[in-house]
Amino acid sequence: MLDVCLLGTGGMMPIPGRWLTSCMMRLNGSSLLIDCGEGTQVAIREKGWSFHPIDVICITHFHGDHISGLTGLLLSMGNADRTEPVTIIGPRGLEKVVNALRIIAPELPFGLIFKEIEGPEADFVVNDYHIHAFLVAHRITCYGYTITVERAGKFDAEKAKANEVPLLCWNRLQKGNVVEWEGKTFTPDMVLGAARRGLKVTYSTDTRPCASISRNAKDSDLFICEGMYGEDDKLNKAIEHKHMTFSEAATLAKEAQVKELWLTHFSPALTRPKDFLPVAREIFPQTKTGKSGMTVTLKFVDEEE
Amino acid sequence: MLDVCLLGTGGMMPIPGRWLTSCMMRLNGSSLLIDCGEGTQVAIREKGWSFHPIDVICITHFHGDHISGLTGLLLSMGNADRTEPVTIIGPRGLEKVVNALRIIAPELPFGLIFKEIEGPEADFVVNDYHIHAFLVAHRITCYGYTITVERAGKFDAEKAKANEVPLLCWNRLQKGNVVEWEGKTFTPDMVLGAARRGLKVTYSTDTRPCASISRNAKDSDLFICEGMYGEDDKLNKAIEHKHMTFSEAATLAKEAQVKELWLTHFSPALTRPKDFLPVAREIFPQTKTGKSGMTVTLKFVDEEE
Repeated sequence: MLDVCLLGTGGMMPIPGRWLTSCMMRLNGSSLLIDCGEGTQVAIREKGWSFHPIDVICITHFHGDHISGLTGLLLSMGNADRTEPVTIIGPRGLEKVVNALRIIAPELPFGLIFKEIEGPEADFVVNDYHIHAFLVAHRITCYGYTITVERAGKFDAEKAKANEVPLLCWNRLQKGNVVEWEGKTFTPDMVLGAARRGLKVTYSTDTRPCASISRNAKDSDLFICEGMYGEDDKLNKAIEHKHMTFSEAATLAKEAQVKELWLTHFSPALTRPKDFLPVAREIFPQTKTGKSGMTVTLKFVDEEE
Repeated sequence: MLDVCLLGTGGMMPIPGRWLTSCMMRLNGSSLLIDCGEGTQVAIREKGWSFHPIDVICITHFHGDHISGLTGLLLSMGNADRTEPVTIIGPRGLEKVVNALRIIAPELPFGLIFKEIEGPEADFVVNDYHIHAFLVAHRITCYGYTITVERAGKFDAEKAKANEVPLLCWNRLQKGNVVEWEGKTFTPDMVLGAARRGLKVTYSTDTRPCASISRNAKDSDLFICEGMYGEDDKLNKAIEHKHMTFSEAATLAKEAQVKELWLTHFSPALTRPKDFLPVAREIFPQTKTGKSGMTVTLKFVDEEE
């Protein structure tokens, strides 16, 4: 199962009671963070989650409200005695940007592995996270992210027998390992049924609606999408600043046939996002307005409690 | 009168309910800020004070917890439509550090005036703030700041008459202007008595106790000083990390004969600073443990309400 927490819901600047938009996931002892604006480390502490296991940080783009908290977080991870390297994924120029910011954090007790996204879409695998970045439509280069957790097929003893797999190898093969035994090579597919439905979360902020979002969000268990403006009559403003209205985000969710939509990245002027929830629900009923610390534990289709 | 607010009291990292140590002052429509760690802009909003009139920002040193919020604050000041230049004072290398951090805030609608401190002590004047920087003893170059607000003498009509100052010039001279009138030059001292006691606030964090602090803090109305550790038995830790215990800060306050001491920059492990207040008060009774938003309005000796 995959824990997903929306750490904050603000756009532009952090304000009291509303941390900047950022998302954290936990899976099999490894955590993933998307975006890290000013105060994100405090939001993580408020949530009660640990910095230490953050193995990968995905940055959507280099506007301050999405990256200004990175240095502070890295320093705090160092203070929490992390020594394993941290992978940072982001647009071209990532290494230059992060190294410039690190002028106030030149020494960290762990390494940074930079993965710069080249082209409109790219894939990365870190631990059990399959990370797909896709270009969206903002004022500067900005990516959305789809995080997928794959799930192998069920163990199939009949298939194992049919493939003449020795009993001793079954367990290791079931766990996904390739096994060499008495000069023969056995692979997991020899004991497993067809791959089962995994989990899929899509995160997209700071963009106009575009085809890459609905295509990549397709069938997501959770779609976290910006809704900078609640009011439909702020569409011109949304177009001017390359953001979205609630209605536009809900339309994307409907097109992508996601299971649930969480709206986030609210304008500081949007003091009561919930007031505009009916506008979005009219288009896509499974919509929620995000709030700091909002969390869901996504389970595989037939996963036991 | 001078408003002084301790925006936060944390050292190392911001934690829920405790912003990083930073001090803001307001005087005659102009604000001054000392240090700007992650979240300082949120602390200012929580206090209900405005970013817009921040004319000068003093940075003690370049550790993340004292400067990591600067970019976000500058961006928010830009969003608050500030166009007048902002003066930033700090150790050598200031311009390089701030410009590196500005990789995520390359465009601001106002200019930055950098004042780098050369040598162990230096003076700056911005609006009505007289700013004196003095070197302290930390792991990297770090300065304390004494902010003085001067107060001219009382208007003295007898003196004005004795100096044959025309009545028409009195008002402008009283306000501190030099006046040319009928070919003669008149100066404020011709109508004013001896300068009266002004106001003095001293701020010093991230340092071992040293003579420059007690000397510069001498007779301050308010002395804001770090107290990283409450317990006397953490002295070795304080020495190792170049910080202070409450007792050491109180001893400095006593030596400097300040009116009041506010302790700040608490270690994240010091969850209840107030528990150790008696330790400090035994040495210097007029001690308070700081908390986020703690404010005082300092008045001139004979200032009316």
